[in-house]
Amino acid sequence: MASIFTKIINGEIPSYKVAENEDYLAFLDINPNASGHTLVIPKKEENKLFDLSKEAYLSLLDFSYRVAKAIEKTIPCERVGMSVIGLEVPHVHVHLIPLNGMSDIQFTKKVTLKEEEFISLATKIANNFE
Amino acid sequence: MASIFTKIINGEIPSYKVAENEDYLAFLDINPNASGHTLVIPKKEENKLFDLSKEAYLSLLDFSYRVAKAIEKTIPCERVGMSVIGLEVPHVHVHLIPLNGMSDIQFTKKVTLKEEEFISLATKIANNFE
Repeated sequence: MASIFTKIINGEIPSYKVAENEDYLAFLDINPNASGHTLVIPKKEENKLFDLSKEAYLSLLDFSYRVAKAIEKTIPCERVGMSVIGLEVPHVHVHLIPLNGMSDIQFTKKVTLKEEEFISLATKIANNFE
Repeated sequence: MASIFTKIINGEIPSYKVAENEDYLAFLDINPNASGHTLVIPKKEENKLFDLSKEAYLSLLDFSYRVAKAIEKTIPCERVGMSVIGLEVPHVHVHLIPLNGMSDIQFTKKVTLKEEEFISLATKIANNFE
């Protein structure tokens, strides 16, 4: 069965996209730890990060670097944190999270954003993506 | 002032090393979230992950991939998680953590290991490092 992320890639589930190319998609986490919390996923579905070939792994993290730089330019924060866990959705996803404290990367504190805030954030990050 | 990690690199502070080359060092986290929790650091001190050049970033993550594979071979777990935060020690460090649940990557639950358990773990992971 297609993962929820594959449904996002296929447009069956809407998302706030911030960057995309042939192989990768970056979009805002709909249940963010912090404003600007973004997910980067490979379009080819794979469960675990370290089951990717090293080439595919590095290519995903190369794309993630560019997304992180765009987030840094957009969101005032102490730094952008990166986390790959994957215990809930079996489709590799890189969390890129603007951090101001440890609670921003513990996945227990969540922030609520309005539709227009998601749209505005996604547009701003996309405009800073190089 | 040299970071605590630079002191580890220089041998001023002892560590349980699992892998090392000219540019990177991997060693067991002394206050682990889970047994096998490992840190990978660049020997050249830099504060933030995304302040590394893309080349240095990818090289660090290439080395980290090999360490993660060695951890996977050594420690029974659901998967190895990766996290880069850096709010406490201003020297880039990649956390590689054997995961069996979210609490293993929230940095709130800690496990206590004996000296001989650290030594045994480090030796086993080092032997699986390719």
